[in-house]
Amino acid sequence: MIMFNCDYAEGAHPRILERLSETNFDQTLTYGLDVHSDRARSYIRAACGLGDEAPVHFFTGGTQANLTVIDAMLLPYQGVVSTETGHINVHETGAVEATGRKILTLPPVDGKIPAASLREYCEAHYADHDRDQTVQPGMVYISHPTECGTLYTLAELEALRAVCDEFGLILYLDGARLGYGLAVPGSVTLRDIARLCDVFYIGGTKLGAMFGEAVVIARPELGKCFRYSLKRRGAMLAKGRMLGIQFEVLFEDGLYFEIAQHAVALADELRLGCRDAGLEMLYDTAANQLFPIMPDAVIAKLQEKYRFFAWERVDSERSAARLCTSWCTPEENVAAFLGDLRAALK
Amino acid sequence: MIMFNCDYAEGAHPRILERLSETNFDQTLTYGLDVHSDRARSYIRAACGLGDEAPVHFFTGGTQANLTVIDAMLLPYQGVVSTETGHINVHETGAVEATGRKILTLPPVDGKIPAASLREYCEAHYADHDRDQTVQPGMVYISHPTECGTLYTLAELEALRAVCDEFGLILYLDGARLGYGLAVPGSVTLRDIARLCDVFYIGGTKLGAMFGEAVVIARPELGKCFRYSLKRRGAMLAKGRMLGIQFEVLFEDGLYFEIAQHAVALADELRLGCRDAGLEMLYDTAANQLFPIMPDAVIAKLQEKYRFFAWERVDSERSAARLCTSWCTPEENVAAFLGDLRAALK
Amino acid sequence: MIMFNCDYAEGAHPRILERLSETNFDQTLTYGLDVHSDRARSYIRAACGLGDEAPVHFFTGGTQANLTVIDAMLLPYQGVVSTETGHINVHETGAVEATGRKILTLPPVDGKIPAASLREYCEAHYADHDRDQTVQPGMVYISHPTECGTLYTLAELEALRAVCDEFGLILYLDGARLGYGLAVPGSVTLRDIARLCDVFYIGGTKLGAMFGEAVVIARPELGKCFRYSLKRRGAMLAKGRMLGIQFEVLFEDGLYFEIAQHAVALADELRLGCRDAGLEMLYDTAANQLFPIMPDAVIAKLQEKYRFFAWERVDSERSAARLCTSWCTPEENVAAFLGDLRAALK
Amino acid sequence: MIMFNCDYAEGAHPRILERLSETNFDQTLTYGLDVHSDRARSYIRAACGLGDEAPVHFFTGGTQANLTVIDAMLLPYQGVVSTETGHINVHETGAVEATGRKILTLPPVDGKIPAASLREYCEAHYADHDRDQTVQPGMVYISHPTECGTLYTLAELEALRAVCDEFGLILYLDGARLGYGLAVPGSVTLRDIARLCDVFYIGGTKLGAMFGEAVVIARPELGKCFRYSLKRRGAMLAKGRMLGIQFEVLFEDGLYFEIAQHAVALADELRLGCRDAGLEMLYDTAANQLFPIMPDAVIAKLQEKYRFFAWERVDSERSAARLCTSWCTPEENVAAFLGDLRAALK
Repeated sequence: MIMFNCDYAEGAHPRILERLSETNFDQTLTYGLDVHSDRARSYIRAACGLGDEAPVHFFTGGTQANLTVIDAMLLPYQGVVSTETGHINVHETGAVEATGRKILTLPPVDGKIPAASLREYCEAHYADHDRDQTVQPGMVYISHPTECGTLYTLAELEALRAVCDEFGLILYLDGARLGYGLAVPGSVTLRDIARLCDVFYIGGTKLGAMFGEAVVIARPELGKCFRYSLKRRGAMLAKGRMLGIQFEVLFEDGLYFEIAQHAVALADELRLGCRDAGLEMLYDTAANQLFPIMPDAVIAKLQEKYRFFAWERVDSERSAARLCTSWCTPEENVAAFLGDLRAALK
Repeated sequence: MIMFNCDYAEGAHPRILERLSETNFDQTLTYGLDVHSDRARSYIRAACGLGDEAPVHFFTGGTQANLTVIDAMLLPYQGVVSTETGHINVHETGAVEATGRKILTLPPVDGKIPAASLREYCEAHYADHDRDQTVQPGMVYISHPTECGTLYTLAELEALRAVCDEFGLILYLDGARLGYGLAVPGSVTLRDIARLCDVFYIGGTKLGAMFGEAVVIARPELGKCFRYSLKRRGAMLAKGRMLGIQFEVLFEDGLYFEIAQHAVALADELRLGCRDAGLEMLYDTAANQLFPIMPDAVIAKLQEKYRFFAWERVDSERSAARLCTSWCTPEENVAAFLGDLRAALK
Repeated sequence: MIMFNCDYAEGAHPRILERLSETNFDQTLTYGLDVHSDRARSYIRAACGLGDEAPVHFFTGGTQANLTVIDAMLLPYQGVVSTETGHINVHETGAVEATGRKILTLPPVDGKIPAASLREYCEAHYADHDRDQTVQPGMVYISHPTECGTLYTLAELEALRAVCDEFGLILYLDGARLGYGLAVPGSVTLRDIARLCDVFYIGGTKLGAMFGEAVVIARPELGKCFRYSLKRRGAMLAKGRMLGIQFEVLFEDGLYFEIAQHAVALADELRLGCRDAGLEMLYDTAANQLFPIMPDAVIAKLQEKYRFFAWERVDSERSAARLCTSWCTPEENVAAFLGDLRAALK
Repeated sequence: MIMFNCDYAEGAHPRILERLSETNFDQTLTYGLDVHSDRARSYIRAACGLGDEAPVHFFTGGTQANLTVIDAMLLPYQGVVSTETGHINVHETGAVEATGRKILTLPPVDGKIPAASLREYCEAHYADHDRDQTVQPGMVYISHPTECGTLYTLAELEALRAVCDEFGLILYLDGARLGYGLAVPGSVTLRDIARLCDVFYIGGTKLGAMFGEAVVIARPELGKCFRYSLKRRGAMLAKGRMLGIQFEVLFEDGLYFEIAQHAVALADELRLGCRDAGLEMLYDTAANQLFPIMPDAVIAKLQEKYRFFAWERVDSERSAARLCTSWCTPEENVAAFLGDLRAALK
């Protein structure tokens, strides 16, 4: 079975394993205070164009990062605005609510929150005489790439930032697949994100790490005492260097960006192949995910050999599939899939 | 600087790193449903003398395991009984309270909860006419070895079990250093623990893993739907096999027990050396920790070369130090320390 | 200013104030263990057709009742299904989420949850291979009358009950305005509700009490140790008799039902008057609320003399108003309003 | 049975009932925005020497006030320091922990927190290199009078204030019986409390109200958006005027202070009578509670006619009783009790 169902079916980039071996018997400080974590922080800040005062914290997973950041940064009576399809709203088993916070949902447009919808929501909240009987919006959660594989444009991000400034909202970007988004030519850069968001995370789990997400707090005053929050939520890894080493390897010489490009190039190949075969796409994506619409029989046929999701039914005979490439997808898998697709479509 | 301050200053057992490399490009199921995690579960159940129906779940750290287990298993109005010095009470930044649970504290006796104290506490609760204005005890949290390095005897554990049965309490054992306790000749066995506790965790972080704790639910009915709780607390690792592989290696042929013996043997050497040098111990320990009482000047002198804690002041001139050995402490470090100790004491 | 904006703008039924005075200097037990609270519980159980084993608890307000019941009865990883317009979802400032629970929303049909939608939702949850990454539905929250003033029919309630039985859901009915619903000829009875719901509350605040909601736990096993939960959520009134006396007066000889009929009769008069004046209704209501659609200019004119909400815009020139009658609305206010309405419409 | 067991066994001061009747059919704004609540706020601010900007909020009970204030004002990783015997720590069924906050306990001295203990605790926290693995102290909770009936002196309060300033702690005073403390000649005044505390509540439930506690936020910046927190915790009473009217009556012309003096005068009579009869006291109290130490047989004899608690065993034959007077204790009850006491002691 060849897997196109997700971008975390394999282990880690070999250079990460090598570095873990090389450093294995070093005795280091614990809880993220080691030299590797410090170096990784420096590399990441440099890549973001941020100064030394910007905290960077490592988490073993995205749900943990999301729940800790959201809980730590909101005031008790505030909630976080998300699309209805946001990962925190549908696929984290209520992890955010488990910290006592409400998720305030808006209908997504291509997986994204339009700035105009956000402004309208905030205006309605503050116009309500009984607004204290509703949850005050305090943060906006977006994903980039989104759960639908789409990307925010620079103009869209800037417009969200403007609404956040107007209503005192924290802008939080979930970058579980951030590298893949950054690898798309012409897309927003890491520096754009660090300039426009208050806090965001750079996903490692889906981009070559065994596990690991780097939360970057671009507005340092939001990160005061954040290590207490890290520990309080069970997110402070004892041997913190395991996280530090991975991000050190990924960011010391651009490996993170390099392996992301590999995935996007192969996704482009898949997109081209699907279009050439006459398939339409459910969403217009550019990073490492694509959603080609296929006859159900074709999906069934392909699933005998490839693992991927039938994402959404389109009509009585067709559904959109979801395909992911990753940092380590072999080129021949793509070629094989496209061959089998063409055969199945005949 | 040679570290005796903790048992998690190094990386992982080399066989774990090897296995990670060997399996690195395999594509496996995610979220702990992979073949390695399944094998690790089987090995652990076998070691515990438990049947297939006993759930085993892997966590990346002890605080995460503690907060998830305690939150998932208590009723909303119940609290968890712990010693005042229990790890959950003093060193987890309120992680248990962050889930809405109160910790009900008892004074420790050698780091342990005597069954008689527990019975008295429960009796007092149920004798109180206004008991519904206090938190109902619903679980007992013990550590084995304790935070003071001491061990529960079989009789002590059985007595606690009896009180738990009498008052409907869940008995939960935090085994962050469990292997080291099991390696002490004559101590309770893993099967004793699996028979007497309702739920416990087998610590990997301090015993040769990069990270990882295996929660064993010996009373399966307490583990129903536990994977929801795992995800809700941000504890479901995407590439769950990273945990599975580590426990597979540790338990497939007894490596876990073997490396624990190494640490205990060296701790015994340290204990003997300290006693020979005329030092008393703060607690009578047998596993991988010892608390020799030394003149402050000797501690200061040794700390120039060795990292370890001055644990507790004993009188105006002496303090108890805490020394830990680990699965990978080199024999020569012990010899060097004892040599320097004897020199400093002269 | 004459108020038709809500049903809790005045104080309490005079017989309640009298009884409070008569009993004022009696010394009674506290925290709801007094004789008045006990009598009130008996009267309520009798009205519901429930036996002595069914717990009845008094709360000072609806949000408090909702958050305590929902938190106490759900398992940690479960959520409560509600309409998007449900009171707990939009007008309680995240009180349910503050207890760590997620609200799972369904689109309302006339303010109600159709049994078919609920079944579909539950089926989709259990069909999902990754269902443990989403919140498990554990309870259904409905209001009767709903926030739109509509009522569940007996068949609708029975259908919901059947789905709840199928998927192990608790059925919880918020009866903030329950009396007004019960007063509608042909509607479900209190006994129907006690038979079909697992837990529900009988609203007093909007029906003649100074404050007070009586939570009835029709399935006693759900109410075990509930007093702990009451205290834990700050809902155990020290002088609990203040609640007991009010419900004693309301239920000892049917006063609750009698004053509800008064309100519904006047609402019927308003409905008839509006329809005679040619107005349509936004929702087809039968209890104490109505939503007549009026030209905006008419609303503005009437609001000079009457306080009521412009509930929802209908088109560019018309909005639906919301009018409430209450247990103490004077007949002449209705007549005056209808007169002014007719004048404004000319 | 004559009750000396608590100060909330009766109803409300008759003038409160009268005012409720007089205003009963007025239509007022809801949720605490009515004219009576506003007047009550003004009276209370004036009595405290505070300006218009100081928020005053009304709650129906003390646990509700405590949990809402503590949750709203602490940062997520902070805890509240209390004595081990503090009401929030032992008699509120974990209500504070239910909001996710840890209570950090200190041993009480006469029911109080000595400033020196607090300083030592805070210094130890900040001196700990691993302090982020423990809960950061963020607030101090004291009761005045304390659970033992004792009072803070002005010097003690000032010393606590100084430590709070030094470590950035919020000083919160639980005044469930505040009036009785203020009525003791030479004790701290309401203005002292408003000057030295950041937030405190003035108890009504135990001082003539049916129910009600007035939270005064002396440092207005701590009270921003507090109404959201009120609603979020189910503490916003729909007919808020019920609270407003009671505090209006109690504070418009000094009734609160007057009825407190009555209770303290009778408690003084009891204290004098007990001492004359040769009894010692467990605590040196001056407000409305006393703890005379009596032979167990005397307690048993008196409990045939009077309800009061045997508070604490003193030796094998004697216990301390707890007696409370209240705003409405009849003088003859005191005389009767003392007569029966003298008889029983013979």
